Amino acid sequence: MKIEILNTGSELLLGSTANTHGTWMGQELAKMGLRVQRQTTVPDGVAIEEALAECISRSEAVLVTGGLGPTSDDITREAAAKALDVELMVDEGAKRSLYEFFEKRKYPMVKANLRQAEVLVGADVIPNPNGTAPGIYTPPRLSGSANCALFLLPGPPRELYPMFHAEVAPRLKALSGVETISEVSELRFVGIGESSFHEGIDEKLAEIEGLEVGYCARLGEVDLRLIGSPEAILAGRTIAESAFSDFLIGDEGFSLEEVVVRMLTEKGTTLATAESCTGGLIASRVTDVSGASAVLTHGFVTYSNEAKHQLIGVQEETLRRHGAVSEEVAREMALGAQRVSGANFAISVTGIAGPTGGTEEKPVGTVCFGIATPTGVETFLECHPRSRADFKQQSSHRALDLVRRAVRDLNS
Amino acid sequence: MKIEILNTGSELLLGSTANTHGTWMGQELAKMGLRVQRQTTVPDGVAIEEALAECISRSEAVLVTGGLGPTSDDITREAAAKALDVELMVDEGAKRSLYEFFEKRKYPMVKANLRQAEVLVGADVIPNPNGTAPGIYTPPRLSGSANCALFLLPGPPRELYPMFHAEVAPRLKALSGVETISEVSELRFVGIGESSFHEGIDEKLAEIEGLEVGYCARLGEVDLRLIGSPEAILAGRTIAESAFSDFLIGDEGFSLEEVVVRMLTEKGTTLATAESCTGGLIASRVTDVSGASAVLTHGFVTYSNEAKHQLIGVQEETLRRHGAVSEEVAREMALGAQRVSGANFAISVTGIAGPTGGTEEKPVGTVCFGIATPTGVETFLECHPRSRADFKQQSSHRALDLVRRAVRDLNS
Repeated sequence: MKIEILNTGSELLLGSTANTHGTWMGQELAKMGLRVQRQTTVPDGVAIEEALAECISRSEAVLVTGGLGPTSDDITREAAAKALDVELMVDEGAKRSLYEFFEKRKYPMVKANLRQAEVLVGADVIPNPNGTAPGIYTPPRLSGSANCALFLLPGPPRELYPMFHAEVAPRLKALSGVETISEVSELRFVGIGESSFHEGIDEKLAEIEGLEVGYCARLGEVDLRLIGSPEAILAGRTIAESAFSDFLIGDEGFSLEEVVVRMLTEKGTTLATAESCTGGLIASRVTDVSGASAVLTHGFVTYSNEAKHQLIGVQEETLRRHGAVSEEVAREMALGAQRVSGANFAISVTGIAGPTGGTEEKPVGTVCFGIATPTGVETFLECHPRSRADFKQQSSHRALDLVRRAVRDLNS
Repeated sequence: MKIEILNTGSELLLGSTANTHGTWMGQELAKMGLRVQRQTTVPDGVAIEEALAECISRSEAVLVTGGLGPTSDDITREAAAKALDVELMVDEGAKRSLYEFFEKRKYPMVKANLRQAEVLVGADVIPNPNGTAPGIYTPPRLSGSANCALFLLPGPPRELYPMFHAEVAPRLKALSGVETISEVSELRFVGIGESSFHEGIDEKLAEIEGLEVGYCARLGEVDLRLIGSPEAILAGRTIAESAFSDFLIGDEGFSLEEVVVRMLTEKGTTLATAESCTGGLIASRVTDVSGASAVLTHGFVTYSNEAKHQLIGVQEETLRRHGAVSEEVAREMALGAQRVSGANFAISVTGIAGPTGGTEEKPVGTVCFGIATPTGVETFLECHPRSRADFKQQSSHRALDLVRRAVRDLNS
C-alpha cells in the first residue's frame, strides 16, 4: 500500500519547529508493517492544494497534518475540497463538540472557530477529544479514479497521537487488507564501517529472495536493517551475525551504553572511568542508562597532569618521559582508577581533541585507551582526526566498546 | 528564490532517524533571508530519481542530502546524472582525497569507496574534509531550461554542516543575487521560559515597525530572533536586553558552556565539578569547548556515597542524616571538590534522575546544587520531573548557569 505523509506548516520549513510528526508516524506505520513512500512538507497557504493533488494522484493513502486551525492560513480543509472536487459543509455534530469544548474550558469562542466544524461532504468526521479541530477521513471512492484514502489530521501531537491510534491505524489496517506483510529486524554493529558490510555480505544478502537491506551509519556504529518475510529475515540475520559476530552488540534500539550497563549488571561487576580528552563523556553516557548507579562507582575527569597524578596516581616520571597522551599514561590511569575505586573494570582515555595541541609525532586526533580488567590491563593507540565533538564522541564510543569486549570475555 | 530540500534515506521514513537536516537547513537559510518552499523525503533507491526530476522542474535551487555513501542503495549521484542527462566520471582530485582520508586513518579502503569519487561532468566537486563523499554542485546551466542549481550533500551532520557553511551558503547567496535585505539578530537567554517573553515584551516588540520576531525555546534556554532593518533590530534588542539582562548570555551561536569557559579564562580562574546525577555531563560540556583544559582542573563523578566520601570528603554523617540528595551534601560536595582540586570555583549536583528512586519527600526530579566560590558557598534545591535525559540536560544547564553567574559576580 502506497502511503504518503504531507506535513503543513511554515514553522517546519523555517526550522523553528522540528518535524516530529513524520518521524513518529513513520515509526507507528512501520510497526504495523506499513511503509511511508514519501513525506513532504509545505508552508501554510496555497502550496497545500498543489501538493495534495500530487499526493492523491500518486498514492493509496495520504496522511495530512496541520492546517485545521481557525486562522486564515489554515486552509487544509479547503485545499482537500478542491483537490477532491467536493463541497464543504458545517457538520452539526462537530459544531456541537466545538461549543462543548469551549464551554467546558470557559474559553471565549470566536467566530473563526466555527470554520473548524466544516467538513467535506461524504467524509467521516473523526472526533478530537483533545482539541478543537476534528479530523476528517475521506474514503477512496471520494477521490474518483485516484482511489486514494485521505486523512486530515490536527498538528498538535497531543491531539494527533491519540487520534492516530484510535481512528487512523484501524482504518489503514482495513484498507491495506493484509495482516502484517513483512517484518523489520535491525542489528547494531560497533567498531566496523559501512563499507565492510558492502564488501563482506552485501552480495550474499542480495541473493535472499524478498529481503530488503538498508544501512544506517553513525560515528563508530552501523545499523543493518532487514525487511521481509520472517524466513528471509532469519536468513539475512544468520549471514550478518556470522560474518561480524565480534562487532554485533544487539538489536537496534539498544545503545552501546545500555548494552554495557546490562552486561556489567548481569555479571555483577563494576566500572570506573578515568577520562582526559573525553572530559566526562564516557561517565555521562553510562549514567544516561537507568540502573547505572549499580555499576558505575567512580568517574575521574583528569584533564590536568596534576589531577592525573593526584587522583589516580599516574607517576610524574611517566608523564614526563612519555607525555600525557601515551599508552603508558593510559595504562597507569586505568590501573589507578581501578585501584582507587575498587571497581572490577576501569577504562581510561587520554588524547588530543584539538583543534590545537597536536605535534608532528602526536597529531590532533591521537588517542590512547587503557582497559583494566580483573586479569590485567591492555592499552591501545589510535588516531581519529575529527572535529572536537566528533573526536569525543568516537573516542567515548571506542572506550565503551573496549569495556563491552572486556566484560564479554570475562570468565570465558 | 525558490529553494527546495530533498532528503533521502529509508531510515527517515521508517522513523528510526529523525529528519534534523530539514530543520537545520531551514534555520540556516532563514538567517540568510532565504525561505525553503518545500521539503521532501524519499527512501533510498529509485524514488530519488523521480523526486529529483520534480524538484528540478519546480525550483531554482535544490539541496539534496544523503545517498552519497559507498553502498548499493546510495544512488543520489546516479539519479542526478539521469535527471540532468549528464555522464558520471571519476574525479581525480576526489579520488586522491579519498585515498588520503583512508591512509591517514589507517582504515582499509575497499573498492566500493571509489564510487564516491564519481561526479557529474561539468559539476563542481565540493571538498569534504570530514568524510569520504565529496559534495557535488551543478550550476543552473547544467539543468538546461529548468535553470535549477543542484547541491548533492552528504547525510552525516558532521559532514553536512561545515560543508553547508563553507560551500553552499556562499553559492546560494551569489545565486539569489540579493544582498541580505534584512538583518538577523539572535539573543540567547538562559534560565527563563518562552512565556515570560510573551508576557513581558511581546506587545512592545510588536509595536516596532518592520520587525519580525521569533522564538526558539529549548530546555533551559530561549533564543530570541529579530529580523528587520538595523534600526528595528536595535530597538528590539534594547527592549529585550533591558527586560531580561540577568538571563542574557549573549548572541545565539555561543553555547552556555562556551560563555562559561570564556568568562573563566578572562578572569584567570579555574573550575572543578562534582557530579552525582549528571554523571559527568557538566564536565563533558565544559570540555566540549576548546581551551577548557586551562580552566577545568578536576572533575569528580561521585555516583556512589562511598565515592562522595572518599574522593571529596563528604561526611558519612551528613549522608546518613540528610540523604545523598540534599543541599547539605551538595554543599559538602562543592566545598570538597574546591578543596581537593584547588580550583577557584566548584559546582556540585546531586539529584534523582529517575525513573526509579523517588520518594514522597524527594520525588523523581529533585536536584540540589552547590556552588563554591572564592568567597563562600551557596546551595539550591529544585525539582525538574522530566525524562532521564532531559533531567540531566536541564540540571547540567542550571549548574553551568550558576557557574556563569558566580564568575560574573566575582569582584563586582
